[in-house]
Amino acid sequence: MIIKDQLHGTIEFDELEGRIIDTATFQRLRRIKQMSITNLVYPGANHSRFEHSIGTAHLSEIIARRVGLDEDEIKKVKLYGLLHDIGHTAFSHEGEDVVKKYIGDHEELGRRKMVKGEIADLLSENYKPAEIADIEKSGHGSIIDSALGADRMDYLKRDAINTGVAYGLIDTDRIVHTLEMKDGQLCISKGGLEAAEYLLIARFMMFSTVYLHRTVRIATAMLYRAIEGAIEDKTLKPEQLAEMDDESALTTMARSGKGAPYAKALLQRRLYKEVCSVPKEGWSIEKAQSVGKELSKRFNCDMIVDYPHEFFKPVEFKVDTGNGLRPIAELSELVRSLKKAEEGRMRVLVLAEENVREKKGQDIEKAVSPLRS
Amino acid sequence: MIIKDQLHGTIEFDELEGRIIDTATFQRLRRIKQMSITNLVYPGANHSRFEHSIGTAHLSEIIARRVGLDEDEIKKVKLYGLLHDIGHTAFSHEGEDVVKKYIGDHEELGRRKMVKGEIADLLSENYKPAEIADIEKSGHGSIIDSALGADRMDYLKRDAINTGVAYGLIDTDRIVHTLEMKDGQLCISKGGLEAAEYLLIARFMMFSTVYLHRTVRIATAMLYRAIEGAIEDKTLKPEQLAEMDDESALTTMARSGKGAPYAKALLQRRLYKEVCSVPKEGWSIEKAQSVGKELSKRFNCDMIVDYPHEFFKPVEFKVDTGNGLRPIAELSELVRSLKKAEEGRMRVLVLAEENVREKKGQDIEKAVSPLRS
Amino acid sequence: MIIKDQLHGTIEFDELEGRIIDTATFQRLRRIKQMSITNLVYPGANHSRFEHSIGTAHLSEIIARRVGLDEDEIKKVKLYGLLHDIGHTAFSHEGEDVVKKYIGDHEELGRRKMVKGEIADLLSENYKPAEIADIEKSGHGSIIDSALGADRMDYLKRDAINTGVAYGLIDTDRIVHTLEMKDGQLCISKGGLEAAEYLLIARFMMFSTVYLHRTVRIATAMLYRAIEGAIEDKTLKPEQLAEMDDESALTTMARSGKGAPYAKALLQRRLYKEVCSVPKEGWSIEKAQSVGKELSKRFNCDMIVDYPHEFFKPVEFKVDTGNGLRPIAELSELVRSLKKAEEGRMRVLVLAEENVREKKGQDIEKAVSPLRS
Amino acid sequence: MIIKDQLHGTIEFDELEGRIIDTATFQRLRRIKQMSITNLVYPGANHSRFEHSIGTAHLSEIIARRVGLDEDEIKKVKLYGLLHDIGHTAFSHEGEDVVKKYIGDHEELGRRKMVKGEIADLLSENYKPAEIADIEKSGHGSIIDSALGADRMDYLKRDAINTGVAYGLIDTDRIVHTLEMKDGQLCISKGGLEAAEYLLIARFMMFSTVYLHRTVRIATAMLYRAIEGAIEDKTLKPEQLAEMDDESALTTMARSGKGAPYAKALLQRRLYKEVCSVPKEGWSIEKAQSVGKELSKRFNCDMIVDYPHEFFKPVEFKVDTGNGLRPIAELSELVRSLKKAEEGRMRVLVLAEENVREKKGQDIEKAVSPLRS
Repeated sequence: MIIKDQLHGTIEFDELEGRIIDTATFQRLRRIKQMSITNLVYPGANHSRFEHSIGTAHLSEIIARRVGLDEDEIKKVKLYGLLHDIGHTAFSHEGEDVVKKYIGDHEELGRRKMVKGEIADLLSENYKPAEIADIEKSGHGSIIDSALGADRMDYLKRDAINTGVAYGLIDTDRIVHTLEMKDGQLCISKGGLEAAEYLLIARFMMFSTVYLHRTVRIATAMLYRAIEGAIEDKTLKPEQLAEMDDESALTTMARSGKGAPYAKALLQRRLYKEVCSVPKEGWSIEKAQSVGKELSKRFNCDMIVDYPHEFFKPVEFKVDTGNGLRPIAELSELVRSLKKAEEGRMRVLVLAEENVREKKGQDIEKAVSPLRS
Repeated sequence: MIIKDQLHGTIEFDELEGRIIDTATFQRLRRIKQMSITNLVYPGANHSRFEHSIGTAHLSEIIARRVGLDEDEIKKVKLYGLLHDIGHTAFSHEGEDVVKKYIGDHEELGRRKMVKGEIADLLSENYKPAEIADIEKSGHGSIIDSALGADRMDYLKRDAINTGVAYGLIDTDRIVHTLEMKDGQLCISKGGLEAAEYLLIARFMMFSTVYLHRTVRIATAMLYRAIEGAIEDKTLKPEQLAEMDDESALTTMARSGKGAPYAKALLQRRLYKEVCSVPKEGWSIEKAQSVGKELSKRFNCDMIVDYPHEFFKPVEFKVDTGNGLRPIAELSELVRSLKKAEEGRMRVLVLAEENVREKKGQDIEKAVSPLRS
Repeated sequence: MIIKDQLHGTIEFDELEGRIIDTATFQRLRRIKQMSITNLVYPGANHSRFEHSIGTAHLSEIIARRVGLDEDEIKKVKLYGLLHDIGHTAFSHEGEDVVKKYIGDHEELGRRKMVKGEIADLLSENYKPAEIADIEKSGHGSIIDSALGADRMDYLKRDAINTGVAYGLIDTDRIVHTLEMKDGQLCISKGGLEAAEYLLIARFMMFSTVYLHRTVRIATAMLYRAIEGAIEDKTLKPEQLAEMDDESALTTMARSGKGAPYAKALLQRRLYKEVCSVPKEGWSIEKAQSVGKELSKRFNCDMIVDYPHEFFKPVEFKVDTGNGLRPIAELSELVRSLKKAEEGRMRVLVLAEENVREKKGQDIEKAVSPLRS
Repeated sequence: MIIKDQLHGTIEFDELEGRIIDTATFQRLRRIKQMSITNLVYPGANHSRFEHSIGTAHLSEIIARRVGLDEDEIKKVKLYGLLHDIGHTAFSHEGEDVVKKYIGDHEELGRRKMVKGEIADLLSENYKPAEIADIEKSGHGSIIDSALGADRMDYLKRDAINTGVAYGLIDTDRIVHTLEMKDGQLCISKGGLEAAEYLLIARFMMFSTVYLHRTVRIATAMLYRAIEGAIEDKTLKPEQLAEMDDESALTTMARSGKGAPYAKALLQRRLYKEVCSVPKEGWSIEKAQSVGKELSKRFNCDMIVDYPHEFFKPVEFKVDTGNGLRPIAELSELVRSLKKAEEGRMRVLVLAEENVREKKGQDIEKAVSPLRS
C-alpha cells in the first residue's frame, strides 16, 4: 500500500500494515482532527489523526533503522507508531480529559484496541498483540513517545504547515541523523544539540502562539463544557465518545441537553469573549472552576474561568557529549530559560458571552481583582 | 479581522467582511471539504470551502487592484470572491449534481443566500445585495470565475499542497503580474503566456492524477449512489442537503434507507473495485447507467458502470499579443494538445464489491466486451 | 562527511567519497556555476556544479538501491554520480561547446580525470578507476544519465528553486518509487507514468522559460564570442579553460584580446538587444554565422545572428506496462505534442548593441526579411 | 524592470531604479557573495549581495507603505534599501574589517557611491543624492537597518533557504503586518510580540549554527590572514579591495605575496583544524593575536588563535503595548535569556594545519591551558 502524505511524500506499507490501515477502527481516525477545534482560529488546521498516525509510523521506521534496530524490531516499532493514537476519543485530548476518569486515558483505550478486536486479530497473524502494545513502556517506546520521538516530530511540523505558522518547522532530517539509543533510551549526539534545542524552542513557540492561543483556549473551554454537559445528562455515554468522531459527537451534543448551547455555539463559531484576565499565581483548576460558578451566580449569566494548561513539562532527554550522557538543560541556557518563560506567559481567563463584557465587564473585573494572589 | 491562511499567509478583512465571515451561513463552509471525499485516497485533502473562500477573496482583491479597478469596485469583487461558494450543498459538486434538478445549482443557491437572509442583511448596510450577486455575470466576474481567475488559482495550489501532489504548484505571482482587463474580460499579456500555459497543464495534470484518480472516481460513484438513494427514499430532502455539512449528511444517510450501504461503506472505506474497464468511445452517462442496471440483474450483485467526467472544457481566455487579443489555443501547441490528451486518458469503469471480481470477473468482462464501440 | 544540501537536506558520504570531495580537482566545481551566466537574468541562479554533483551522488544512491543493485554496485554508481561532471570546463556547456573540437567534450575530459591524477589515485584504493569511468556507458549509467536519471532530476529541481521558477518542481519522490531496471535500462512502472510525463513537461517548460529565455540566449551568444575570441588570439588555451573556473576565465578574457569587449560587457551586464527575429525554418547554425558576418560588414557594426538550440531531443525511456516495455511517447499524447510545441517556440535572433536597434533597426529588418525561408 | 527573486517572487522596479540596477557599480554586487566563504561549509551559500539588495528594496517598500509613509517617502526608502550595501568591499564584512581603518567602513564607502559617481548622477535626476544617503541616519532608516528592518528580514530567510538550515524561516508576513512607526522609530504592536521574539531566536540560532559554525570561523580566520597579508605587502591596496569582487580578489591574493598560502588553501579548501579550544572569559582580540604569534614561534608552525565575534548585541526595539512603548527584553524572558545563552556558546579556538594537531597537539594544549582565565 502506497500513501501520499503532504508532509513526508510517498510512504509504503507492507501487506499487514495495509490491512490494519483498512480496518474500520483505523479509518475512524480520518474523522478525528489532530488539533480538535483549533480550526476555529487557524482555518487550515483540518488535518486528522489518520495522517499523523501514517506519518508517525514512517518516522518511527526511519529512526528505528537509524539507531540500529534489527528488521524485526523495526517492524514492531513501526506498527506501534501506526497505532499509537488508535485509542483517542472524539476531540482527541479534550474528549479524553473529560472521560478518562470513567474509561481510562487514550493510552489505555489504545492498548485495549491493540490486544482485542479486529486490529488484534490482524496483529496476531505475525505477533502476540501484547508485544506491540508493550512497546509503549519499553525502551523502544521512546522512538515514538519522547521529546525527540516520531510522534512529536511529526505533529510539530504537520501542525505548522497546516496552520501556516512558521514556528514548528523543525529540522527533522538533522535530528534523525544525530539520534542514538544509549542506555536503553533515545538520545542525541553532540552534533545534534542545536537541532534539538531548536525543536524545544519550536515546541514552546507552537504552544505559546497556537496550542494555547487565547481564542483556542476559549473554544476549548466551551468544548469541555459541551462534553461535560452531555456526559452529565447522559446525552452521551463516555464509552460512546470513545468510538465517535468529532463531527458526529458535536452534532449529537448540539441536538439536546446540557451541552447543547455550547455545541451549537461552536458549530456557528459564536465564541465567548475574555472579560478580564489575571496572572495564574495562586490559582488552580479547582479554584478556577469554583470561582466560575460563583461569578455565574452573582452576575446571573454563564461564566467560565479558564486556568491555563501547564504545557512545558521538564524536558528530560539526554545529549551524548562523548563524555557520558547529560540532560540538555545542563548544556543549554536557552532550554533552561523556556520553563521560566512559560510562567509569565499564561494567564487565568474570565470568559462570558460577548454582551456580558459590555454590560458587566467592569463589575466583574472588580469582583475578580481581589482574587489575585 | 486577521486570518492566517496556510497558502497566502496573513489576510486582513474589514469590519463588514468580518461580520459576514462570522455568520452561521458562512461558518458552515468550514464543514464542507473542498475536495469532498478525495481524502479517502489522499489523506491530506481535508481542507475546507471556508479556507478556499478566504483565499479566493484575497486573490480577487489582488487581481482587481492589479487590473486597475477603483477602490469601491475592488471591495465588491472581494466580497463576491468571499461568497462565490456560499451556495454549495454538502459534498460540493457531488451533492450539487444530484440535487440541482430539484433546487438549482450552487450558483443559484448561492445567489439566493446573497440576496436574502443574514448575509443579505449585512451586505445591505453598504450595498444592494443584488449588486454583489450580479458580479458573477458581469465582466468583473471573470476576476473570480474564469480560467485565470482567483477561484481556480486558489484551488489548484491549495489542492496541490494538501494532497502533497506537486503538479498544481502554479506561479500565481507571475500570472497576477501579467493580468489585464481588456474588452471587459480578464486576459493575460504576452509576457504571461508561459505562466498561463503552465496553469492549464497543471490543471490537466491535477485532473488526470487527483480529481479523476481511479479510486477517487470509485468513491465518488458510491457517494452519488448514497445521495441518490437517500433522496429517492426521502431519508434526505434536497433542500436539507443544501444546508447540511459533509459529515452530518453522511451520518444521516448511513443511518437508514437506500443510501445506507454506500454511506456506511464510505465511512469505513470499503470501496468497490474495478472489475474491468473499456474505452469511452460510444458511451454516455445514460448508457453507463442502463448497462449498470442490466449487469446488476444478470450477475445478481450490485454493479456500477462509471462514465468519466469530461473535465477539459475548451479554454477560452485570450492573450494580449500587442497586436490584439488572441485565444491561447491559437498560440500554444501544448494547450491544443491537452484536449486530445484527455480523450485517451479516461475509461469507462465497471465496479463491484471486491469479491465479485474474483468470482465473476471473467464473465463480466465477456459481457461488457461486446459493448465496446 | 556530512553535507547539508539546500535541496536534499543532510547527505552522508563515506571516508573515500569524502577524500575525493576534498581534492582540489573536485573543489574547483564550487566555482563553476551550474547555469553559467543565467544569473544575469535570474539573479538567484548562483548554484554550483559542486552542489549539483553532491545531489546527483545522493539521488544515484537512492535510485540504485531502489532498483535492487547490490551494495558494491550502489557504491560505484554513487561514485560515478559524484564525478559525472568533473570534466566540465569553465562555463560548463558554453565553454565545452567552444573547446571540444580541440580537447574533447566534458565526458572525455571527465574520464581522463577519473583514470589519471589525484582522483584516480584515491579511486584505486578500492577500485580500478576505469571501472567507475566505464559506468557511463554501462546499463547502470542510465541511473545517472538518462531522461529519468539522477542528473536530470537533481538539476531540474535545483534550477527551479534557485531561479524561483515553479515549473521544475517535479515529484522526485514519486518517480523514484516507480523506477525499475529492465532489460538493462532504467524504466518506469505504469504507476509512474504521470510523474514521468510531468517531468518531461517540466523540462520543456524550463527550457522554454529559463534555459532558452531570450535574454539568457543573448548573454550566452556574447559569452560564446568572448570565449571564441580568447581562444583564437591565444589569450586562453583550450586546455586552460578546462582547468579554470568561471570568474577567473571571465577576468582573464576581459583583460585583453578579441574576447575582451564581450567579457567586459558581461561583467557589467551591458547586453546586446534583439534587433529583430525570424522563424528558424530554413536556417542552420552555419547560415546564422555567415549572415551575422555579412550583416556586421554591411551595417558597419558588430552583429550576432543566434540560431536556437534544439533542446528537445526525442525521449526514449520506456514504461513497463505489465505487458512489456513501451516508449512513453506511444502512451502519452502530451509527450508527443512536446516535440511539435518546441518547433514554433524558438526563433532566430538578430542581435546588436542597444543603439543599433534605434538607428538602423528598420534597415536591418529589411535586410533579414528576404532571408526567411 | 521585473526581476524574479527566489525569495519574494516577482518584483517590479520603476525606470530610475532599473537604470541604477543596470550600472556597473550595482552589477558588481552580483559577484560579492552574501555569506562570503560560508559556502565552504554550506555549499548552497552562493547567493549574492545583488539578490539581497533587490529583496531589501522590495521589503523596504512594503514596510514603508505599511507604516503609512507617503508615496515620495516610500520611493526614497526603497532606493536606500536598494543601495544600502553598495559600499561593500570584496568578501563583505570580512574585507571591510581589514580595510576600514584605511578607507572607512561599508556605510561610509556606500555613502560616497551614493553622492558621487554614476549612481549619484542617476539619483540626481529626481533627488538630491544626499537625501537618499541621509536616510540611513534618519528615523526612516530603521525601516531598513534595525532589528525588525528589511535588511535583516531579508538576509535571515535568504540565508536559511540557501544553506538549507531551517532556523531562519521567520514569519516575515506576520511581522510586517504588525510594524508601526512610533516616536520616529520602527516598533511592533503587541500582536507581533511572538513573531518578533521568534525573529530574535531565529537570528540567535543562525549565528550559533551557521554564521559562527566552527568551520566557518576557521575559514574566516584564514581569509582575514589572506587579506591582511596582501594589504601588508601591497599585493592589494585597500582601495582596490573596495572595487573588486570576491573571486578576483582571491585570485589576485593567491598569485603571490604574504596572503598567497591562505588564499590558495581557501581555493582548494585545505582548512586549518582546531588543535584545542578554551572558554573566552579573560580573552580579547588583542590577546588572541599575541598568543597566536607566541605559539607560532614556540611550536615553529603557523598558528591562529581565533577570538569569537560577539554577535548578540543588546536588542533595542520596542513593543507598542497599548500602554506606551516598552523594550522587548522587558516583556520576554526568552529574549532576555539569549544574551546569557550566547556567553557560554563561543570559545577561543587554537588553529593550525592538520598535521600539527597530531604531532604537537598535546604540547600545544598544555601551553594554552594556563592561559585560561
